[in-house]
Order: sequence, then C-alpha cells, then structure tokens
Amino acid sequence: MTESNASMTGSIVVLNPNSSQSVTDALSEALEPLRFPTGPAIRCATLAQGPPAIESDEQVAAVAEPVCDFVREHEDDSGAFVIACFSDPGLRQAREACVRPVFGMAESGLLTALARGRRFGVISILESSLARHLSYIRELGIETRLAGDLPLGLGVLELQDHTVALDRMTTVGARLRDEHDADVVVMGCAGMAALRNPLEEKLGIPVIEPVQAAVSMAMGAVALG
Amino acid sequence: MTESNASMTGSIVVLNPNSSQSVTDALSEALEPLRFPTGPAIRCATLAQGPPAIESDEQVAAVAEPVCDFVREHEDDSGAFVIACFSDPGLRQAREACVRPVFGMAESGLLTALARGRRFGVISILESSLARHLSYIRELGIETRLAGDLPLGLGVLELQDHTVALDRMTTVGARLRDEHDADVVVMGCAGMAALRNPLEEKLGIPVIEPVQAAVSMAMGAVALG
Amino acid sequence: MTESNASMTGSIVVLNPNSSQSVTDALSEALEPLRFPTGPAIRCATLAQGPPAIESDEQVAAVAEPVCDFVREHEDDSGAFVIACFSDPGLRQAREACVRPVFGMAESGLLTALARGRRFGVISILESSLARHLSYIRELGIETRLAGDLPLGLGVLELQDHTVALDRMTTVGARLRDEHDADVVVMGCAGMAALRNPLEEKLGIPVIEPVQAAVSMAMGAVALG
Amino acid sequence: MTESNASMTGSIVVLNPNSSQSVTDALSEALEPLRFPTGPAIRCATLAQGPPAIESDEQVAAVAEPVCDFVREHEDDSGAFVIACFSDPGLRQAREACVRPVFGMAESGLLTALARGRRFGVISILESSLARHLSYIRELGIETRLAGDLPLGLGVLELQDHTVALDRMTTVGARLRDEHDADVVVMGCAGMAALRNPLEEKLGIPVIEPVQAAVSMAMGAVALG
Amino acid sequence: MTESNASMTGSIVVLNPNSSQSVTDALSEALEPLRFPTGPAIRCATLAQGPPAIESDEQVAAVAEPVCDFVREHEDDSGAFVIACFSDPGLRQAREACVRPVFGMAESGLLTALARGRRFGVISILESSLARHLSYIRELGIETRLAGDLPLGLGVLELQDHTVALDRMTTVGARLRDEHDADVVVMGCAGMAALRNPLEEKLGIPVIEPVQAAVSMAMGAVALG
Amino acid sequence: MTESNASMTGSIVVLNPNSSQSVTDALSEALEPLRFPTGPAIRCATLAQGPPAIESDEQVAAVAEPVCDFVREHEDDSGAFVIACFSDPGLRQAREACVRPVFGMAESGLLTALARGRRFGVISILESSLARHLSYIRELGIETRLAGDLPLGLGVLELQDHTVALDRMTTVGARLRDEHDADVVVMGCAGMAALRNPLEEKLGIPVIEPVQAAVSMAMGAVALG
Repeated sequence: MTESNASMTGSIVVLNPNSSQSVTDALSEALEPLRFPTGPAIRCATLAQGPPAIESDEQVAAVAEPVCDFVREHEDDSGAFVIACFSDPGLRQAREACVRPVFGMAESGLLTALARGRRFGVISILESSLARHLSYIRELGIETRLAGDLPLGLGVLELQDHTVALDRMTTVGARLRDEHDADVVVMGCAGMAALRNPLEEKLGIPVIEPVQAAVSMAMGAVALG
Repeated sequence: MTESNASMTGSIVVLNPNSSQSVTDALSEALEPLRFPTGPAIRCATLAQGPPAIESDEQVAAVAEPVCDFVREHEDDSGAFVIACFSDPGLRQAREACVRPVFGMAESGLLTALARGRRFGVISILESSLARHLSYIRELGIETRLAGDLPLGLGVLELQDHTVALDRMTTVGARLRDEHDADVVVMGCAGMAALRNPLEEKLGIPVIEPVQAAVSMAMGAVALG
Repeated sequence: MTESNASMTGSIVVLNPNSSQSVTDALSEALEPLRFPTGPAIRCATLAQGPPAIESDEQVAAVAEPVCDFVREHEDDSGAFVIACFSDPGLRQAREACVRPVFGMAESGLLTALARGRRFGVISILESSLARHLSYIRELGIETRLAGDLPLGLGVLELQDHTVALDRMTTVGARLRDEHDADVVVMGCAGMAALRNPLEEKLGIPVIEPVQAAVSMAMGAVALG
Repeated sequence: MTESNASMTGSIVVLNPNSSQSVTDALSEALEPLRFPTGPAIRCATLAQGPPAIESDEQVAAVAEPVCDFVREHEDDSGAFVIACFSDPGLRQAREACVRPVFGMAESGLLTALARGRRFGVISILESSLARHLSYIRELGIETRLAGDLPLGLGVLELQDHTVALDRMTTVGARLRDEHDADVVVMGCAGMAALRNPLEEKLGIPVIEPVQAAVSMAMGAVALG
Repeated sequence: MTESNASMTGSIVVLNPNSSQSVTDALSEALEPLRFPTGPAIRCATLAQGPPAIESDEQVAAVAEPVCDFVREHEDDSGAFVIACFSDPGLRQAREACVRPVFGMAESGLLTALARGRRFGVISILESSLARHLSYIRELGIETRLAGDLPLGLGVLELQDHTVALDRMTTVGARLRDEHDADVVVMGCAGMAALRNPLEEKLGIPVIEPVQAAVSMAMGAVALG
Repeated sequence: MTESNASMTGSIVVLNPNSSQSVTDALSEALEPLRFPTGPAIRCATLAQGPPAIESDEQVAAVAEPVCDFVREHEDDSGAFVIACFSDPGLRQAREACVRPVFGMAESGLLTALARGRRFGVISILESSLARHLSYIRELGIETRLAGDLPLGLGVLELQDHTVALDRMTTVGARLRDEHDADVVVMGCAGMAALRNPLEEKLGIPVIEPVQAAVSMAMGAVALG
C-alpha cells in the first residue's frame, strides 16, 4: 500500500481489485488533490489475487471473495474502503464482511452524477459492458435518470494514448449530451482521471470521475465517523 | 451425476452449487415427475467446490467461477443447465461462459409465478436473504408485481421436520395471501419440493417450486433446441 | 381436437381462438417436439365461434366469452389450457372461469424471453398491434426489460411465403439486436414456429416461439399438478 | 335514451353498459349539475345487451362488442361517449370503433384524482375487484401515485341503504386517508354519486365521483371539438 | 379581470402568471367555447407582479408567492383557479394556500392526454424547457406514458406568425406521431389555442390545448362543488 | 459569513436559507470535522431575506429568488454552494443562476444514503412534510429505494431538548429499521447533526446527516474542480 500521514482508522483504503500496480499508481495520483494534511489519509492497494484486468461477469464474481478477505484483514486499521473498478466487484459482499463503510466506484460515481445533473450519460470502454451496466443501474433503481451509455470502441493501446482517448471521449460525450440529452457524464472506467478536467472543459457539462467521487463520499464518512 | 436415459445433448443438467449430496438427491427426486421416456434426460450434479450451504452474498459470488468451470466442462454433452440455488449464483456468468441455455432457479420460479397470478409472494427461509431477494427482483425489473417476501424464521433442524416446516409455510403463505394480496407464492428455497403439493392444497392458490419451474422451462429449450 | 395418448386430466389443451383450422394444424405440428410418450398429451383445438383472424381489440374482447365457455366445458378432462393467440384473448377471464392453469401465448413467451436475455425484442406482424403490445407489456410490469417492438410490414400473402417471411424477420430481428440492444427476441405471432430455428441461427441470439414457450410452462404445471 | 336540448353532434352520450335502467336513471340524475342551457347535452343510455350487473372479467370482456356496436350506431349524432362502469368495459375497443372521443369512467376518475391530490385512494365495492383495479392502474402507468384500494365489504342490499353506505364509505375513506396517506379518494363504483358531497364533507379531502369526472372531461372535448 | 355572468363562487378564475395582458386576452378568447349561460363563469386575470414572460426555473419559483397571494385574496369569490402557464408555477403552493381546487395547465393537459391516447407527445417552445418538463412528468409519476417532448425551435417573432407556427407545429407533431409513436399530443405552451383545431386536423390524432383541458376539469369541480 | 482559511474560489459556501443565525451557527459547528488545514474552506452564511423557518411549499418557492441572488453575488469568490434546508429550496434555480456546483442538502443526503444501504428511511420533523418529500423522491427517480418516511411528531420546544429529541428519533428510526426494512436512515432536517453519532450507535445502521453529506460531496467537486 501507498502509505500516508493520518492515523489508520481515519484512513480511506482504495482497493484496485485487479493486480496491475500501474493502475493502482494512476489511481493514487488521481486522488492527490483530495489528500489534505490532517485530513483522512488515502491509501491505495493492489489486490494481489486479482486478474490483470476485470472484463467479464465471471471475473467480477471471482474477485469478490479476495476483496472480502482484504477488507476483513484491514478493517482494524482502516476507516473506509473504496473498491476501484467500475463493476463494483465484491461491493455487497464486502459490506457484509466488515463493519467499515465500503464505497463502490460505479455506485458512487453514478449517485454523484445525480447530484450534478438531471440525466446522466456513461462513457464506457467496452460495448460488452453495456448490458452489465444497465442491469446494475436498474438494480440501483435509478434507470429513469439514465440518458444513455455509449462505448468508446477503442483498443487497449489506443486508450493509453491520451490524445486519442480524449478525442474519442469528447466525441462520445458530445453524443450523450446532444443526442441523448445528458447534462452530466460519468467516466465508466478507472484510470482515466487525468482526462476529467480537459473533458469537462470540452463538453461544457460536469464530468464525474468515479474513483474521486467515491473517495469524496468516503471522506465524509471517515471524518464524521 | 445421476444418469438418465436420453442422448447427452438432449439432456438437462441441474447443478446443485453447494456440496451437499443429500440436497442433490432431494432435487433429483423432486424432478422425477418431469422425466419422460424419450423426453429430455434430467441429470443432477453436485458442485464439489461449493460450500455445504450458500447463505451469504460472498458465498454466492464465490461459487460463480466453479459454476462456470462446470458448464464449460459439460456443455458438449448437455442441452441446458439449471442452477439449483435460490440466489442464482453464477447465472449471468455461466451464460457468458457457454453456448447452452442456462436457467436460474429463482429467476425461473419468479417468472413462472408471473404466469400464474397477478401478484407473487415469496416464502424465504432466512430474514437475512430478504434484501438480496429484493435487489434481485428489482434487477429483474418485476418489482411492481411483488406482493411481499416473508421469512420462515425456522432453524435448520426445524426445517428438516416436514410437519413443522409445512405448518410454518402455511402460516407464512396465508399471510402473503391475506395481508399482502398475493395470489401465487414462490418457495424461496431449494429442497422443499415435497411440500409443494400439500402447501398448494392448504393455501388454495398456486405454489411454485422453482427448481421444477426452471426444469420445465429448460425442457422446452432442449426439446425445441 | 387433435387427440393424443395420455390421460385427459394429464393433457394440455392448446386453444386456437380463431376459427381457422389450418392455423390449428400448424400449431399442432409446431408442438410435435414436445410430445413424449407417457408425457402430457398436447391436444389442439379450434374455437368454432372465433373469427377467421383476431386483429383488433374488439375481436380480442369478443372471443373472451367463448374462450371461457370452452375452458368450462373442457376443464374436467384437461390438465391445463394454452390460449394460442399473441393477444392472449380471454386469458384473465379463463383463469376466473376454471380451476385449471391457463397460459397465454404472449405472456408465456415474454416471460420466457426474460429467462434467456436481459432485454427482449418483439417481432410483430402489424404496426397497428404495437400500442396494444406496449399496454400489455406495461400491464405485465416488465416494460423496463423491453428493447423494442418492430412490425414486419408484410401482407398476408407474403407471410405465407416462408422464404420472404424469414428474410424479413431476419432483417427486423437484426435491427432489434443491433439498434435496440435486444439480446433475445420473441416472435409476436402464432403460426411462424417453423421459422424459429432458422431465425435463431441467422440472428445468433435466442428466438422464442411463444406457443412452444407456453406449452413448455404448461408441461411443468400438468406433470407436477 | 334520456333526450336533452342540444344539437346531437354537440352532445355527450353516457352509456351504462349494464341493462339496469334504474342505474341509468341514477346516473342521469347525478349529471344534472353539468347540464347547462346551450352547453353540451348529456344523454344517458342503457345497453340492452348488457348483463344486469358487471362483476367479472368475463362480463367486462363480453360487453365490449355491444358497446362498440352502440358507439358505431350513434357516432353520427353524438359528440363524445362516456362508458359508465368502473371497469371501463370496451373502452379501448370503442376508441378503435368510432371517431368520437370515448371516455372511461375509471380512467377519467383516476386521472382527475391525480389533479386533486398527490396520492389517491380507491373505495371499491367488492374485494374481488381489487386485483383487476391494480392491473388497470398499472396498465395506465400511474401506480406510483396509488395510496391504496380498499373494499367496502357491503352486500347489495346494504349498499342501497345510503345511510349505511355513507357510514361505511366514511370509515374506508378515513382509513385510506389516515393509514395509506391518500389525500384524494375515488369512488370505485357507479351509482353512488349522491354520496359524493356528504362523503367529501366528512373526509375533508377531495372525493372524485368518476362518472362526473368523465363527463367533465368530455364537455371540454365536445365544446372545443 | 374579464368579468362574466355567473355568481362569483361558481366561477373559474384563470390566472395568467405573467404580466402580459395580451396573453390573458388570448387565453380568454380561447376559452369562449366553454362559456355557457348559467354555466360556471370563466374569468381571466393577469398577475401584476409576474414577469413579462416566465422562461426560467427561477421565474417559476418567483411567482409562486404572488400566485398564492392572488388565490388567498380571491378565494371567497371564486369556485376554482386555473394557473395558465405550462410550468404550473405555484400550483402546489396555491393548493396549500386556499381551500378552492387549483388546476395547473400542464398537469391538466398531460392528464387529459392520458385519457385520449396511450402515449403522449409534447410540443415545447424552448429546448431549454425539456429537462424541466421531464422532471415534472417524472414527479407526476406518468413518465412511462411519455412518447417524447420536442422543441419548436422558433423565435418569438416567428411564433407570432401563426402560419409559420402552425407549419412548424405540424412538422414537430408529425415527428412525435411517426418517430416517437405518440397517439396524442399536448401543446406545451399557453397562447397557441387558436392553432389547436387546424393542428389536430393536420395530424389526425387528438391535440390537447392545456388551458382548455384545465378549465374543462375545473368546470366539473365547480359545478359539482 | 463565518470566514475560513482557504482561497475563496476553493471554498464551499453553505447557505442557510432561513434567517435564523442560530441555525447557521449550529450548521457551522456540525461541519467542523470536515475542515482541514489546506482543505477547502467551509463558510456558512445566513440568507437575510429568508423567513425564520421554512415550513411550507410557499416558503420553499419564495426563497428561490434570494437564493439565486446570493449565489450570483458570491460565485466569483466561491468554489461550490450547499443549500442547507431539507426542502432544497432554490436548488434547480441556483444551478441555472451560476456556474458553480450547487448541492442540495436533501438530494445529497438521500443519494449518500443509497451508497450506504439498500433501502433508506427518512426521519422527518413534520407530518405535513411527508407528501412534499415523497414528491421530491419521486422526482429524483429513486422511490423504489425508499423504505419509509416517518414524522417525529415533536413540537419546536421538545426538539430543542436533545435528550427528548434523541429518544424520539431512536424510536422512529427503529420503526423504519424494523417495520419498514430500512438499513440506512436520513435525518430529514437541518440542525440535528449533534445527534447523528449517538443515533447511529443506538440504531446500529448508518445514519446520514444530510448537510454533512452535501459538504462531503462538495469537497470533491471543489478539490478536483
């Protein structure tokens, strides 16, 4: 874990449930603006047992148990947990498994969007995720607020080129805004936080980066404890 | 697996995702009326990797991967799968993992109830399952048809005494019928099939045993396939 | 009625509520794969008082009473009834009129689709039926699962040419799949069962023939009853 | 028909779909306050082919065709139709059958209630009607506004004693108001119009008499024609 | 106020909540067909404190208090109130502020549309109003009946040319009918009543002018009061 | 305004829309745990033009315009606004009026509850607020997650006695938890923040204090801005 300066029970642990340390590092960097001296520490961790990437329903289910093991192991020295994958793997299970508040990146991002606009759009990476997102949004009971969910249609390499990714996100975000009447969009992926500000500037409507949204909610829970 | 007499690709495999062979045996017996010579074979299997019982969200998630492994391994010699646990563990994942139709016991039971009455009640074993059921029913998009979901409040031992169990199910079913306006009830558990007929007689409204409902749907899929 | 080999109270009676015997014959043929020796008999009947075809709300209402007369007359020697018209004429009324389970072709087909995909499409014959379908889907409380309902726009003669009909169904089904995100489709008409298998092959997603779906559900009810 | 003084195409025809002339006479009397010189005539008619009372789904369906015949026969000399039975028998069908606006008593009463309060209650006569009402309210898409629907539980003779009926309606209306949070109630029956004013006075919240509500809506349609 | 011939407590007061007398005059003219000798008087008033036009959420909120002052001041000599602006400003508040029934033009128009078709479209003036309309329709709980809401995209001057306005309304209405499956449309603005009849003729489906709809509902409330 | 130590554009302004400075002072104290050196400043302001308390729909509407004036006046030296009244007066309007994010206490509190439990309960002060709350929850599109909303039924003086208030809140919260199946509750009022911790301890489920929830969300928006 990336350590930080606050007392452990006042800290927020952001768990990347895939095993890619580079993703965890990017998460940690994206959360830098939320780290205040004397504020809750924000520590980022990588789930060693996770797959390199989580892309199927099966992988979502498979990491639930190691996510639970993680929160059980760390609940004594943590104030709250954030699961940093847009499928919220193990979210419900982790809530059963420990007494600390557990926030899901997708859930928090979508709920935060509801506080910023009337109809939210989602920018997804993979077309194959859309049905899972829709089921989840329906399970959350907020589908009447959904404007649309559109895939980027970019490969992994293209995504890593931030100029290409930003261009494509802008195109997709503009479609959500103009054709689907979205007035707020959620970035449906982890690891794109660096693009939030430029994307928001280009679209002219709020853009929610969901890990940041989850940590923001967690800060309240931890500080008020 | 309990073998049967039809060609394998014309067979229905009912997977008990917990490791209790006695539950599998009870399932198989409950399905006897649906076994016809020259009809689809109905084979019942026990998931060796499953826990003795599935009672928490974490256990539900944890068996998804072995359920997927099972359907991948058996799809070549099976016509359809039924997952025989009221939490439908691994249902979505198994549908991604193989080309055969996969039916969930809860989903099939609830949908079949919609074809038998206007408002369905659910008789659950554990109070702690109610929130999970409600989320699932909301995810299925059928919550406007839900009359109510009530727990039996019986311990494991009491459940095994069928006289006690039937008495309690009748009381709970009557409450669903009289106080919640249910006109059909679903048995929210596997292993109670023997009580379906007497319960239906006592309540005077249709009682759905969900494994039977799932196998009935699977028969159409396999026979027409 | 087309007779069959099982005891009468163990039989399923499929009632074609229009007076066209050729439609009844096609129904009976489509159900052949579901007839197993010692399984429930599947008998098909034509409603003598029905119109040659049921195309308007008025005709839907008008056959309810003769449908009820039919089920009252035959309930002693039948185990379950299926009403084989996609408007489910007389379904509710028949349920009041007799003690046997009564299944509607549309209701059963739509519910079965919910067990095969996340969002269902409907392939309708007439554009003028769409509003009625939508009202019915809303009444069933499952409209959040509807992907879309599109008409074939074919005349009666063209429909009878199965090559033309299959071509058109494939086009419409592909639009439901690609533009409306349906991952399962329901054939919104009786008498097209012969096209189910080729259509499913062409579309690559499950295709539900609703009379078969209704009879499959009825088999469970009769066998377990 | 009870004749009136306006030109025929400017008139509203209120059709009692049961064959009881005494019910028609009571309807006509209840509508007296809405008859203005030079305003739309309000004529009341009895459906000769109707049953003495409409109490089952089967009867609801059975009168649809004679209702359609009636509106077809009278559309040339009528401006609008109101079907005066709380099950709205033949409403959809009559809308297909003629070019005039057709209003259903239940639909109009429920929609008018939505303009008078936030949550509506329904006072029904028969417990056996509740499921039908709920299906209809769901089909109308307004079930989130329903506070509750409670039966009077009175026999026909008791209902005819207006003192007894008013007492019972007051009790049931007060339960809808106090236990179900209704702030407006709809009288779920024809023939109780004389009790609307005293009931409203006793309950202190708006009481909608649905035939009056339907005729009020029809007046706009006819006058603006 | 434009005076009329009935007793004051039997009168309907239509309040234009903006300060433009020309709008009030047009309202009054549009309501002429609903004025019957001995029927409820229909008086139209202009809210002196209102802005010249109500176009933003802030203006909607700002007139609520003067609307309440108005109904308090006039409730002794009025039978019912109609607020004649499609944002229904002050509707809820006015219902708290006085004992008379208060009808909102948008609410009444939308509810009346539900009695004339299965799916309603809305023809709005400004694109910027669409989100507010959608929120309101959702608050009313009738969003499952909404076919679509499309803006005219005309400037104020163009709107005043009725030939141009009718042309554009016909185009937009036809899109609602053909692309969004609306079978009834609501004019989402005050002051266009003169175009209702020609628009209905051109579209071939019912067109609801919402002030007329509100007054029609109010007539019932006042006459039966 | 209570000043604080951060740069003005990085600050959160919490506006108490009633004119009671004592309420503002209590708000400010409740937010102390969220004030971090170098974190966003949290300044609390009293709306001079507000009424002493906001209890009716009319008052809710009436403060919208001065709320808008306030945010317009302060947007240059503020990073985000929080409207600190459970009716969210002027929330939509303020979002139109300025470019800064504006958070409503009720909206933020309810959305935060959705991230802490499956079904939320609301503890309201006044019974007369329940209908307004329900409309708002419906407008937000989250009513399927509502477990219940119950009033405290305490007078102003009793509320000020925190021992009495906590007792009563515990009783009402326990009813929401036990009879309505809430697994998270929202305090439906401003000024009770001091009771959040003891109430949460007594109930054993998360208790959301909505001003804190709104400020927590605002911190993310400001820090990331």
